[in-house]
Amino acid sequence: MEAGERPRAAVVVTGSELLTGSISDKNGPWVARELGELGFEVAHVLLVGDRPDDLAAALRFTVEAGCVLVVTSGGLGPTADDLTAEVVASFAGVELVLDEDMREHIAGILRRGWAARTEFSAEAIEEANRKQAMVPRGAVALPPVGTAPGLVVPRPGGPLVVVLPGPPRELQGMWPAALQAPPFRELLGGVPPAESLALRFFGLPESEIAATLREFDSEIDLSGVEVTTCLRRGELEVDLRPKPGAAVFAGELHAALAARHAKHLVSTDGTTTDELLARALLQRGWTVATGESCTGGMLASRLVDRPGSSAYVAGGVVAYSNTAKTHLLGVPAEMIEEHGAVSPEVARALADGARERFGADVGVGITGVAGPDGGTEAKPVGYVCFCVTTGEGLVLARDPRLPGSRSDVRERSTDLGMHLLLRAAAPRP
Amino acid sequence: MEAGERPRAAVVVTGSELLTGSISDKNGPWVARELGELGFEVAHVLLVGDRPDDLAAALRFTVEAGCVLVVTSGGLGPTADDLTAEVVASFAGVELVLDEDMREHIAGILRRGWAARTEFSAEAIEEANRKQAMVPRGAVALPPVGTAPGLVVPRPGGPLVVVLPGPPRELQGMWPAALQAPPFRELLGGVPPAESLALRFFGLPESEIAATLREFDSEIDLSGVEVTTCLRRGELEVDLRPKPGAAVFAGELHAALAARHAKHLVSTDGTTTDELLARALLQRGWTVATGESCTGGMLASRLVDRPGSSAYVAGGVVAYSNTAKTHLLGVPAEMIEEHGAVSPEVARALADGARERFGADVGVGITGVAGPDGGTEAKPVGYVCFCVTTGEGLVLARDPRLPGSRSDVRERSTDLGMHLLLRAAAPRP
Repeated sequence: MEAGERPRAAVVVTGSELLTGSISDKNGPWVARELGELGFEVAHVLLVGDRPDDLAAALRFTVEAGCVLVVTSGGLGPTADDLTAEVVASFAGVELVLDEDMREHIAGILRRGWAARTEFSAEAIEEANRKQAMVPRGAVALPPVGTAPGLVVPRPGGPLVVVLPGPPRELQGMWPAALQAPPFRELLGGVPPAESLALRFFGLPESEIAATLREFDSEIDLSGVEVTTCLRRGELEVDLRPKPGAAVFAGELHAALAARHAKHLVSTDGTTTDELLARALLQRGWTVATGESCTGGMLASRLVDRPGSSAYVAGGVVAYSNTAKTHLLGVPAEMIEEHGAVSPEVARALADGARERFGADVGVGITGVAGPDGGTEAKPVGYVCFCVTTGEGLVLARDPRLPGSRSDVRERSTDLGMHLLLRAAAPRP
Repeated sequence: MEAGERPRAAVVVTGSELLTGSISDKNGPWVARELGELGFEVAHVLLVGDRPDDLAAALRFTVEAGCVLVVTSGGLGPTADDLTAEVVASFAGVELVLDEDMREHIAGILRRGWAARTEFSAEAIEEANRKQAMVPRGAVALPPVGTAPGLVVPRPGGPLVVVLPGPPRELQGMWPAALQAPPFRELLGGVPPAESLALRFFGLPESEIAATLREFDSEIDLSGVEVTTCLRRGELEVDLRPKPGAAVFAGELHAALAARHAKHLVSTDGTTTDELLARALLQRGWTVATGESCTGGMLASRLVDRPGSSAYVAGGVVAYSNTAKTHLLGVPAEMIEEHGAVSPEVARALADGARERFGADVGVGITGVAGPDGGTEAKPVGYVCFCVTTGEGLVLARDPRLPGSRSDVRERSTDLGMHLLLRAAAPRP
């Protein structure tokens, strides 16, 4: 490891089902984030099928990539194609030995679990139990969160291999124990702490941050800070991760980026719009109600995502049909006739109607053309009308044309709805 | 490639932001699925940062893994860290040359796009244009979908490298042109066609399929068929992919699995519950209305996901507060008092209320304890009451305890709500 560089780590995720494209991997991103926060540079995330040769090749690749740590997920079950322990033992150059304590521990779990069901043979269970209690010599076994134990396996010359189960809940549940295993703890002692800084912007394209960074870079060398950007839920998340020794400079860059794009700034500590909105509503003692057409309940659902949301979510109406708009939210039929169901007027009537029907303090109305059909020249696919109104008389209205597919338009509408609610509820300067 | 085995392909996705865990990769699963359908075995998906050495190592690894094809995504932009074309040229052992036609083509796009904005210097634009028109000698350049061209780069001794842009929309948009590029077309000529068979089950644990396969395997060799399972939206998707020559046997296995687990079968051709429900509602000419508490609009939103859903979605009410349940859906306050807001009685009143208020043919009510707080001994976190009622007098009720976190409970509730709606609307035998 060169001076000023972070030690490298890799994630190897096993599972043939990840290579058919029918499921996306949850473990790679989760482990990568944890490793980054511990101060590692994540060299790569590698998804391989349940084939021993491929897993062995993946492990050798982490050596070539100069990794001091590799975390694997999956392949620890009781069936014949669960081969991770065996392949990792061979990679570390040691044999598998039966861990008697672990065998007892697993037997106890099995007795309480599915083994209690009589349709399974005692013999098959004993076989599975024994297989899962085989541990590479010299490794630390981690107690199961489900039924599969994890492993921390030192390899002479490195890397250290941390072997975790595939189900995300088991993997995440076992992580604290893995961190406490002596070989991992020792490795962590030599890793410079990460001091990552976050920024969040709404409505700012990634290219604008890139342009600002290029401009700064022409004046001062930015290479001490790794900047990554990520667009999610309509927000641009910017992450500044200083290399060892560059923390002060990262702080200055963080402040400069926030100042340059103040108009679009959501937070300087990574707090999301959702969290800021919840805080603002709680602080004001406000409740919110929704009147949704094209988003079809997506905005209400997003508001309810947060634990404790019953304190500020009154409810909502999905008024997908014109009749529903009129009957349930009191949108005048003549208004729909005159301006169309997708119009700033109807958006406002949806907001007011929702606020009044639910007795809420703030209402939001969304109506738009999500597509793929139903667009006209005047109101093309992606045209969406928003309105947020409050009992105090505040009215915030927008009617942008949003790009993308039906689901893109609906998701972006939800993002913008959350943003407008925050604008209405946030403490005013 | 051995007889009876499929040719191997790999996906290499570049982007440092994928290694911080703040975003999950969309391109790997998408390309992997396409490659599987073309008849390749996907050896691995590798995510690497925007570092030329790591990309070069990733490409070499595909050679070691015996791949005849590698698809890359990302790193084709105009900035200095967009290095994919250069690294791939070096991997193929050829130099980069300016493609004059491509330069003209990109210049045209830039003139119509952001280059029209005066804040960017003409010089910087010309520089970016030139960089993006550099093509490895002997490669086929693919016209941009955004502003970055793609590449199909033959390497002596293999693999063929298909270089695509990072934004999923651009990548997917460019894929048909990549398939038509002569070197890719020629390679595809030698790939045995895939004949994958699908099955979908609801409420069946993965372990049951595994147990059935073990049982079958003890009688007849199953190794000719690759079986992958994936649990998504409450449904177990089973994919049977025969190796060359095993298509008939795969058909028999497909039928045997469907027969064995007929009680849980959703479809034998991969059709989802969502699609079957839409068809059933359209066929009956029914409309549906929702009365949701803990799911907070998630079920309505799921119904609206499908294009054309306005034909059968009347609307819904998110009755998160007790007042809303009473005022908007007519749930008697005394009923809530007596049985609690989370009770089979209230679920039924929500279903009936939604159906009546929206004038719909079928109504669904969901009320439950999503957590993390609010659970009691009698009604713990995860306890959710469902009811589907129709104008014809059909009543389907359930009140399971669902496992997992707040979002797990809400998602599983939505899955079960869709399943019950399908049960109510599906043509009866």
